[in-house]
Amino acid sequence: MAHVLSTSCCLKISSSKKSYFKPSTDNFTSFSSSFTSKVCKSPMPRLVWQEKELPGKCIVRATTLPANQEAPSTQSSSGSLDASSGLSKTKRVMVIGGDGYCGWATALHLSKKGYEVAIVDNLVRRLFDHQLGLDSLTPISSIHNRIRCWKSITGKTIELFIGDICDFEFLTETFKSFEPDSVVHFGEQRSAPYSMIDRSRAVFTQHNNVIGTLNVLFAIKEFREDCHLVKLGTMGEYGTPNIDIEEGYITITHNGRTDTLPYPKQASSFYHLSKVHDSHNIAFTCKAWGIRATDLNQGVVYGLRTDETALHEELYNRFDYDGVFGTALNRFCVQAAVGHPLTVYGKGGQTRGYLDIRDTVQCVELAIANPANPGEFRVFNQFTEQFSVNELAALVTKAGEKLGLDVQTITVPNPRVEAEEHYYNAKHTKLIELGLKPHLLSDSLLDSVLNFAIKYKDRVDTKQIMPSVSWRKIGVKPRTIAA
Amino acid sequence: MAHVLSTSCCLKISSSKKSYFKPSTDNFTSFSSSFTSKVCKSPMPRLVWQEKELPGKCIVRATTLPANQEAPSTQSSSGSLDASSGLSKTKRVMVIGGDGYCGWATALHLSKKGYEVAIVDNLVRRLFDHQLGLDSLTPISSIHNRIRCWKSITGKTIELFIGDICDFEFLTETFKSFEPDSVVHFGEQRSAPYSMIDRSRAVFTQHNNVIGTLNVLFAIKEFREDCHLVKLGTMGEYGTPNIDIEEGYITITHNGRTDTLPYPKQASSFYHLSKVHDSHNIAFTCKAWGIRATDLNQGVVYGLRTDETALHEELYNRFDYDGVFGTALNRFCVQAAVGHPLTVYGKGGQTRGYLDIRDTVQCVELAIANPANPGEFRVFNQFTEQFSVNELAALVTKAGEKLGLDVQTITVPNPRVEAEEHYYNAKHTKLIELGLKPHLLSDSLLDSVLNFAIKYKDRVDTKQIMPSVSWRKIGVKPRTIAA
Repeated sequence: MAHVLSTSCCLKISSSKKSYFKPSTDNFTSFSSSFTSKVCKSPMPRLVWQEKELPGKCIVRATTLPANQEAPSTQSSSGSLDASSGLSKTKRVMVIGGDGYCGWATALHLSKKGYEVAIVDNLVRRLFDHQLGLDSLTPISSIHNRIRCWKSITGKTIELFIGDICDFEFLTETFKSFEPDSVVHFGEQRSAPYSMIDRSRAVFTQHNNVIGTLNVLFAIKEFREDCHLVKLGTMGEYGTPNIDIEEGYITITHNGRTDTLPYPKQASSFYHLSKVHDSHNIAFTCKAWGIRATDLNQGVVYGLRTDETALHEELYNRFDYDGVFGTALNRFCVQAAVGHPLTVYGKGGQTRGYLDIRDTVQCVELAIANPANPGEFRVFNQFTEQFSVNELAALVTKAGEKLGLDVQTITVPNPRVEAEEHYYNAKHTKLIELGLKPHLLSDSLLDSVLNFAIKYKDRVDTKQIMPSVSWRKIGVKPRTIAA
Repeated sequence: MAHVLSTSCCLKISSSKKSYFKPSTDNFTSFSSSFTSKVCKSPMPRLVWQEKELPGKCIVRATTLPANQEAPSTQSSSGSLDASSGLSKTKRVMVIGGDGYCGWATALHLSKKGYEVAIVDNLVRRLFDHQLGLDSLTPISSIHNRIRCWKSITGKTIELFIGDICDFEFLTETFKSFEPDSVVHFGEQRSAPYSMIDRSRAVFTQHNNVIGTLNVLFAIKEFREDCHLVKLGTMGEYGTPNIDIEEGYITITHNGRTDTLPYPKQASSFYHLSKVHDSHNIAFTCKAWGIRATDLNQGVVYGLRTDETALHEELYNRFDYDGVFGTALNRFCVQAAVGHPLTVYGKGGQTRGYLDIRDTVQCVELAIANPANPGEFRVFNQFTEQFSVNELAALVTKAGEKLGLDVQTITVPNPRVEAEEHYYNAKHTKLIELGLKPHLLSDSLLDSVLNFAIKYKDRVDTKQIMPSVSWRKIGVKPRTIAA
């Protein structure tokens, strides 16, 4: 995969109140940090690097050593916090893909709620932006500065492991070091258009997502068999059947006999298909090995602000509006902000489930706090409302008018292969039953999305907005998308 | 994947009546063959090697040049043979995995029937035997000698491309060179126990099978968009639901609405899961790109003899009876032949579809001769009878008694995770409707399987018979199976 770095290493950033290193048999070198923390007002941390040789590769660990900041020790607080609420059993959460859009917001939310959090990420999402000439609407800090800022503001530590979960040796080290009670797995290539750019990206997406998830399953089996896997799936796995969509399973009566079976899947991109493959693989390991897993079939996420990312500009989340990574509603809001017509693909009757990113973090927390049983493969449909693209465009137009924006809508040829007028009724009650309190789009549109788009409109690159990837024209030659 | 060679090269063996090489701009070296053809009585072929540099790799082509043998020219006969039967449209068939158990029998059958056949294979199945210390019951010739023998007996040419379809550059060369009208894709790791040996084999199986098939789909789209893909799936994709199994799709009425959807999948090994993933990927490309595809969900194949492989010992097919690659019935026959008790896993109520290998080759030919329409993803359940393991054991016991064998049966702990008593009723009418004339087990058991097992019983290694792979004990450390 020429477009993805094949190297991976393990960089662990954690905090300790001690300012010296415990002697070990490993070689290590210590030096003062050369990073500058421009915005955080906390004392500068010291970095201690510890290098350990593994056969054929080097694992590097860095530990931030704040000079005068007290934080709960990872070891001493484990198992003692909020035992009455069940937190003790699920306290240590590894967030794979914790530098991404949903992952970062989730990592902070869980840290705020008292979980011990480690982020595992190879940062490849940032590389994709470089390679495709894209950028988040919001300026985002490095993962290192993000974590330092969080520490300085809240006193809470997030451990960081930088590497690729397709590298099982790296993943093994993260499991042995962090010993997670729950793994939240966002660590996949998550864009349908990206997976349809060219053969190489299609293959990368399926390899990366399927093999990464297989490795996580093996790591749980081998090292933390009671660990609960919370895996991000997608509502796109179901496609658009002409019957109601249930949550993972459907009871079928056929020729006089009845069984409850996995809901049939009809995914419509190599990305969505990779999630279908994951779901089947996970279901099998629950049955064969007793893995406990929750598959969160998430709808389209919108919004930028969560309580935690709003605390400081260095904590701000990424916000994608481009034709590859931007989701429909976020893109519409940016288009409205800069006076670009809203681009409806085809007839606009495409209906999907949507949710506010503040509900994403709630849902993940609910899943962790109420784990699946050993051997259970539990599926939740994770969205709060469903809209057609035309309905979204109308909502953004109306909200824009309140802000004095003149919002136009145009139809562009649909780059995807999908039904543009269809029945859609998807169940989503299980997370509500666990306590989800939804943020509704009508309340959130202005303060959580549109105002942010307006605030950062000078950063908008309008060349990124139009669709640049065609489901039918994908070819075998590596493609560079020119802005 | 330490257990699989990562190199691949392209070795093309074809025949021509000319005894000299047409000059070209490529460098080439010619030399006399140093191979000996011990059994074939035909004149020794000469080998001409042609080397061509590609960026980063070397493609080697070898052309056999029989001294005095006439064969139809690939070019001149193309499109002219059996036009009335529709053969002209589907004449050039690429058999991926054509050196394997089903692939070899199919390649010969299609060649005999007048198709122009090319075998694409990386020969990794032979490597697996070396690595696991296994061997076919029947001695099998090298693919090169097999093809030369076929040529000497029938005058028919089979082209050979040796390489890995996960290497898209190699696959591209095969498509550009051979220009297939149909691709029969057997080229996958096909053993459930193999996929459950260790993490490395699980990952290899899913990567190899899923990415190889993705590459084939891209090659068809890019180079031969009208080419019909005939893909070998497995009945194991369906699992053992408590309702009738349909052929690929099921019509569901739910909450007052009706749709016909892909039949739900419940595969029970990483191998079977890889086939589920393939099916979803292929279905998507039929819809998005207009690929024409037939998915043959094959049952458990038994038997050794086909009309073509029986022509000469150098054409004999492989016959696996070991705990990793041996299928139930073949293994039982070998056990009966050597006086080893038949090993029933668990309660023995596990019921599956079975078919004679002579019906495998018939079915593939029927699928090729009656191709799917552009955009159609057609699924056939490819088996002829269904049996429980206990029923198979009883049939082998009875057949053995006719030959004077004292056949015992023992129960061994089931190494798999599967229902041992369950409902099973799978439809299989579509291939019958196309003209399949089944060979039934009761007629075939003695002459096609048991007598062969007895003939070669001195080659049986009884250490290979017992199950050596456990679904529940699979781990992350690379495992060497000691005999």
